[in-house]
Amino acid sequence: MQPNKKTISNPVINRLPRYYRYLDNLLVSGVTRISSGGISKIMGLTPSQIRQDFNHFGGFGQQGYGYNVKQLHDEIGKILHLDKKLPTILIGAGNLGNAVACSTLNNENSGFKLIGIFDKNADNIAEINGFPILPMEKLDDFCKENCPEVAVLCTPPQSAKELADKLITLGIDKFWNFTNYDLLVHHPEVIVENVHIKDSLMALSYRANNSER
Amino acid sequence: MQPNKKTISNPVINRLPRYYRYLDNLLVSGVTRISSGGISKIMGLTPSQIRQDFNHFGGFGQQGYGYNVKQLHDEIGKILHLDKKLPTILIGAGNLGNAVACSTLNNENSGFKLIGIFDKNADNIAEINGFPILPMEKLDDFCKENCPEVAVLCTPPQSAKELADKLITLGIDKFWNFTNYDLLVHHPEVIVENVHIKDSLMALSYRANNSER
Repeated sequence: MQPNKKTISNPVINRLPRYYRYLDNLLVSGVTRISSGGISKIMGLTPSQIRQDFNHFGGFGQQGYGYNVKQLHDEIGKILHLDKKLPTILIGAGNLGNAVACSTLNNENSGFKLIGIFDKNADNIAEINGFPILPMEKLDDFCKENCPEVAVLCTPPQSAKELADKLITLGIDKFWNFTNYDLLVHHPEVIVENVHIKDSLMALSYRANNSER
Repeated sequence: MQPNKKTISNPVINRLPRYYRYLDNLLVSGVTRISSGGISKIMGLTPSQIRQDFNHFGGFGQQGYGYNVKQLHDEIGKILHLDKKLPTILIGAGNLGNAVACSTLNNENSGFKLIGIFDKNADNIAEINGFPILPMEKLDDFCKENCPEVAVLCTPPQSAKELADKLITLGIDKFWNFTNYDLLVHHPEVIVENVHIKDSLMALSYRANNSER
């Protein structure tokens, strides 16, 4: 089932991981079949919204029978390309880099394969999850030899621009960006997914202080 | 300037931190005045969208003169209540909890004040940023004495439900949630801001494998 890439909007793409996550929870709970109404309740979307989303990818469901949870889970996993192992490096082996390398990325079905970790203080840090931490001086040679496609940026924002410029010249064009530096301003051609942890805390601050209760 | 809380939609609220972040960058770069057209270029929004957003909070700008960057930055900071110090505890002193406690939360103007860190393996971890790590057995007494309003959840998802149930009985009703557990399913009454790091990686996987290049 090949989706028509051009017709799929960002909100739909951003909902796919949520569907996958909820279906994963259902699988763990032993649920084998669920209606769009059932998914709508746990996800807070309308059943029609869910059917519309799934229609972008050819449907999935049998009218009246609901969805097979395992099949739907695996199909959405395929659409997300979680079976891929895109060669990935991580820069910045502080607490956040450590957390990302040890949990989210360290997963058979993440879609990515961590092949190197770099830090400017490499001498002080032994390893993460069995990976040696390499000094930044080795970045050029490593990229030439191993051709990573993806970089995870866990450095302070101050060094992010210079680092991104360098990584792009080394052939990397996909970024998972935790730095708050807006890569697309200078490099609109790359693929970037940003995690703005600070924005989330600010949104919580607004909501915490503006609740009606 | 008091906004009319009822009229402000989630997308507008979620854009406020982005405005704040961009204005922060402009301040650091020494920019003192900027038009809505200028903000629109760096943020990828239309000037009319920006004016509409700001009108929810009474405007800010003088037509034709652009916005005073420092004033606008500080006004948005006030709207976000970043000057508050909501008493906050963090549960889960692993790498992620460490990163959050040491960087984002450890900030004079975060809107929150970290007053305690808890971990089920408290015996093995000395301290984070000068904070002693307390064992979970001390959670009840600590909450009764110190009345935290906010909890940051950095635990594995398996323990998240039980933990959230407990924290809510202890009077906590605001959560910054990194666990992927959907708190609102069982507790629609609380305020939750989720950080779904895993969802972001899945969205990157989709985009990385569906680029037109």
